[in-house]
Amino acid sequence: MTLHIEDFVYYADLLGVAVFAVTGVLAAQGKQIDLFGVMVLAVVTALGGGTIRDLALNAHPLIWIADPILLWTALGAALLTFVLCRYWPYPRRTLLVLDAAGLALFAIAGAEKAMALGFSPLIAVIMAISTGCAGGMIRDLMTGRIPAILQHDEFYATCALLGAAFYVLVHGYVDPNILAFLSMLLIFVIRLLAVFSGVRLPVFLVAGLDHPPRRPSL
Amino acid sequence: MTLHIEDFVYYADLLGVAVFAVTGVLAAQGKQIDLFGVMVLAVVTALGGGTIRDLALNAHPLIWIADPILLWTALGAALLTFVLCRYWPYPRRTLLVLDAAGLALFAIAGAEKAMALGFSPLIAVIMAISTGCAGGMIRDLMTGRIPAILQHDEFYATCALLGAAFYVLVHGYVDPNILAFLSMLLIFVIRLLAVFSGVRLPVFLVAGLDHPPRRPSL
Amino acid sequence: MTLHIEDFVYYADLLGVAVFAVTGVLAAQGKQIDLFGVMVLAVVTALGGGTIRDLALNAHPLIWIADPILLWTALGAALLTFVLCRYWPYPRRTLLVLDAAGLALFAIAGAEKAMALGFSPLIAVIMAISTGCAGGMIRDLMTGRIPAILQHDEFYATCALLGAAFYVLVHGYVDPNILAFLSMLLIFVIRLLAVFSGVRLPVFLVAGLDHPPRRPSL
Repeated sequence: MTLHIEDFVYYADLLGVAVFAVTGVLAAQGKQIDLFGVMVLAVVTALGGGTIRDLALNAHPLIWIADPILLWTALGAALLTFVLCRYWPYPRRTLLVLDAAGLALFAIAGAEKAMALGFSPLIAVIMAISTGCAGGMIRDLMTGRIPAILQHDEFYATCALLGAAFYVLVHGYVDPNILAFLSMLLIFVIRLLAVFSGVRLPVFLVAGLDHPPRRPSL
Repeated sequence: MTLHIEDFVYYADLLGVAVFAVTGVLAAQGKQIDLFGVMVLAVVTALGGGTIRDLALNAHPLIWIADPILLWTALGAALLTFVLCRYWPYPRRTLLVLDAAGLALFAIAGAEKAMALGFSPLIAVIMAISTGCAGGMIRDLMTGRIPAILQHDEFYATCALLGAAFYVLVHGYVDPNILAFLSMLLIFVIRLLAVFSGVRLPVFLVAGLDHPPRRPSL
Repeated sequence: MTLHIEDFVYYADLLGVAVFAVTGVLAAQGKQIDLFGVMVLAVVTALGGGTIRDLALNAHPLIWIADPILLWTALGAALLTFVLCRYWPYPRRTLLVLDAAGLALFAIAGAEKAMALGFSPLIAVIMAISTGCAGGMIRDLMTGRIPAILQHDEFYATCALLGAAFYVLVHGYVDPNILAFLSMLLIFVIRLLAVFSGVRLPVFLVAGLDHPPRRPSL
C-alpha cells in the first residue's frame, strides 16, 4: 500500500514536471524564441522552483542532479510540444487542469521536503509556495513579462499557501501519505474552483494615483 | 553597554527590513499586482540581499530561516502598507530617509558577516553592496524595470561601497561596535547629501551613438 | 609541458572574463546606466555563469571568492571600456571572435569542473552550457531584454552543447589537457562558422497564431 502511494507520487511528480515544461514552451509563443531557448524555458519552469528550494534549504544534491529522469522528462515534453504546436493548436483548458495538478504536487512535495529536513512549519509553507511558483516566475521574467502570479493569476499562489498550511497544521496527526494526498487534493480543487469562477485577490492601489482595476479578461 | 548596542543593531535591522518591504510594496503601484504579489515583492526586497549574500558565502541557515521574525516583519509591514495606501498618500521624503538608514544597516551587516566568517576585505565590500542593493534590484526586475541602481539612483550603491571600504580599512583598530556605528552613519550621511544635492555618477556613452544624458527628474 | 598548458588555460580564462565583462558594459549602451551599473553588469556577465555552476554543484568557495584576480580583471576591463568608448567606437567584429573564444573556454571549464567533482556527463554538459551562457542571460535580463541566447543568437548555446558533448564522450580516452584544448577549439570554430554563415535553429511557432519568422538582421 505504502509502496503504491509512493509510486503514484513519483509518477505524478513526473507528470507535474512535464506539464510545467509545456507551460514553459508555450510562454515562448510570439517571442521569436528558438529550439534551444524553448528547452531552457522548459527546464527552468519545471525545475526552477525545486532548485531554489534546495538551494535555500542547503539540500544538496539538487533534485535534478540526484534524479536526471526529471531533466529528461522536461526536455522530452518540451521537444514534443515544440513539434506538435507547429501543426495543432494546444488544448488550453486541459492544460489549466493539468497545471493545477502540477501546482498541487510541487507545493506539497516542497512542504514535505522541508518538514522531513526538520525545518519549521512557516519555512515549510514558504518552500511549498517557492516550489510551486518560482519556476513560473522565472519563466515569465525570461520572456519579458511581469510574473503572472504577482498580477491577475486567480488565487494561484494562494492555493499553494492554503494547501501547505493545511499540510503543516495536520502534520503528525494523520498517516503522512494520506495527508499528502488530501493536501494535494485541496490545492487542486481550490485552484479549479478559482479558475472557473474567476475569483481574485484585491489589487494594490495608491490613494490619488490609481483607479479600481480593470478585470483582466481570461 | 555592548548589550545595548547589539539590541540597537537588531531593532535597527528590523526597521531596515520593514522599510525595504515598504519600498517593495510601492514598486507594485500601477502594475495591477495583487495582495499576494505585494507580499512576495516585500519579502524579496527586504530579504533578497541577505539571501544572496548567505548563498554566496555558503553561510547556512539563511538569515530568515534562522530568524523568522525578519519574515514576519516584512509581511506585517507589507500588509500595513497595502491597507494604508488605499486611503492615504505615502510620505515620500520620510521614506527616502528611512531607506538611507536601511541601506546603511544592511550594507554594514553584510560586511560584518563576511569579515566574521573570515573572508577578505574585498569580499566583505562586495557583500556589503550585495546585501544593501540586491533586494532592490530583484524588486525592479520583477516589476518590469531596469534596476534603478544601475541607472540614475544618486550614489546609492556608491554610498554602500564607501561605507564598507571605511569599515574594512579601519577594522581591527577600533571597537567593533563603534566602528559599525560610524560606518553606518557615514553611509547614511553621504546618501542623504547625495539625495538632496542630486549628485550622480557619469553615464556610459558610446562615441558616435550617444549624446550626453538627460538629467532624470526626481 | 603540463605546466605550460595549465598556464595557458589560466590566462585564457582571464581573457574570457575580460571579454565577457566588455560585453556586459556594451549592453549598457543607450540605457542611461552609470559607472556603478556598468561595473555590476561587467561582473555579473563575466562571473555569473561560474557562480551559478558553483552554487548548483555546491562547490564552495565560489570561483571569484577563491581567486579575486577574476574580479579585478572584470572590473579593470569594464573601467577601460567605460573610458575608451567615450572616444572611440568599439571593434564589433573583433569582439565577436573574442566572445567565441570566451564561450569555448568557459563552457569547457564548466564541464571539466563538474567531471572533476564526480558528476555525471549529463550534468557536466548542463554545467558547460550554464557556465558559458548564464552570465549573458542575466546581463540581458538586467538591461530589460529577453535573453539573446533564447532568441536569434546563432547557435551560441548549441556550440557549447556540442563541444561539451564531445568533451564528455572522449573523456578518459585522451590526455585531459589535449582533450580540453580540442573541445575548446571545436566550440570556437563552430561558433565562428555559425556567426559568419548566419545559421540558426528553428523558432517556436504555434499553429494558427504564428507566421514563419522574420530573419533578424545581424
